[in-house]
Amino acid sequence: MAADYGEVKFFGAGGSPFARRVQIALKLKGIQYQHFEEDIFNKSELLLKYNPVHKKVPVLVHNEKPLAESLVILEYIDETWKNYPLLPQDPYQRASARFWSKFIDDKCLPALWKAAWTVDEKEREKGVVESYEALQYLENELNDKKFFGGETIGLVDLAANYIAFWLPLLQEVVGLNLLSNEKFPKLYAWSQEFVNHPVVKENLPPKDRLSGFFRARYASITANSK
Amino acid sequence: MAADYGEVKFFGAGGSPFARRVQIALKLKGIQYQHFEEDIFNKSELLLKYNPVHKKVPVLVHNEKPLAESLVILEYIDETWKNYPLLPQDPYQRASARFWSKFIDDKCLPALWKAAWTVDEKEREKGVVESYEALQYLENELNDKKFFGGETIGLVDLAANYIAFWLPLLQEVVGLNLLSNEKFPKLYAWSQEFVNHPVVKENLPPKDRLSGFFRARYASITANSK
Repeated sequence: MAADYGEVKFFGAGGSPFARRVQIALKLKGIQYQHFEEDIFNKSELLLKYNPVHKKVPVLVHNEKPLAESLVILEYIDETWKNYPLLPQDPYQRASARFWSKFIDDKCLPALWKAAWTVDEKEREKGVVESYEALQYLENELNDKKFFGGETIGLVDLAANYIAFWLPLLQEVVGLNLLSNEKFPKLYAWSQEFVNHPVVKENLPPKDRLSGFFRARYASITANSK
Repeated sequence: MAADYGEVKFFGAGGSPFARRVQIALKLKGIQYQHFEEDIFNKSELLLKYNPVHKKVPVLVHNEKPLAESLVILEYIDETWKNYPLLPQDPYQRASARFWSKFIDDKCLPALWKAAWTVDEKEREKGVVESYEALQYLENELNDKKFFGGETIGLVDLAANYIAFWLPLLQEVVGLNLLSNEKFPKLYAWSQEFVNHPVVKENLPPKDRLSGFFRARYASITANSK
């Protein structure tokens, strides 16, 4: 259980992988917090007050001081509550964790989205190639570790949560096979470790709702392209 | 002068604001390093070896361990060489510095580029609006501080170097007036403080070369659009 450093409010939204990164971190560290569930189609006044720049979840409010951006929040949590460290102590390893988290946000997720949601066949194919390339980098980086963070879940594991849980559901809906045991055995084994970690397992969105959301979105995109 | 923690190699390229962020940080901290100047149109084997993922400057190699991504490198430098701190000590202020640095990279610079380099008039106008909005956020964040970092240059100042030095040259070439004393008096005053800081001043690219580069690029873009 983490030390009590005052009032913590967390603004999330069920299906958001970015919000779930923070939620899982709060749970891993055993931080007591008040949960505010946002409807992303009808955002609350409070959310807009606390995150006027991006107007998005996740937001963490600690003793009335708000923070946005999941990776920024994760580092803040790790610097404030020291138990269950998310980043290593060594400066080079810390930098490496930041590099791969940023890589996931800047390269990997956009590639996966392009592969899944692009109507134009050529662009979509480009997205597939870029996805394989990005996943291969992560496969290599993971190597023989249980988690990117070593024996425990760390910053990169949380950043990669989309790959472990959202991607398998998404690729089933859109008919792709980006992450598989055959292509990326280490990353696949990691994804199983991650989603079956007791704290993670308890803090993921319901599969059927997420699949439903993906199916609806895919249907709307493919319908509009005809 | 910083402590000697072994061999430091820095890979930069004259006109790159991202590389200059790191170069200025090295100089501010008085870190001894070996400078490798890259030709971005003909990258060296060494650069590709050290940054296989992004194949870009800046790269910092410390005791043969390579790091890429300017903001990641800046945090690494700050955690390794403690003199002339670039980030505050307080976790919330650290998170805030990370938030605004990320904002500059994710929102502000793309808006400025869209405003300057988009041929389509409507898109360009959208870029102008987004640029004003982004600069206004920075104006507010700066408030009455000398630097974003307070009395000394910090992470956000380095991240914002493009706004202080590159943008004034760029907007002259492309005929825009995004940053001005009238519109953003605090940010404008900051830009003057920043570029006239003795260490920064010594470590900026030559103005005429940069203007020449912008002019050539602008001519090529406008020629292609006719």
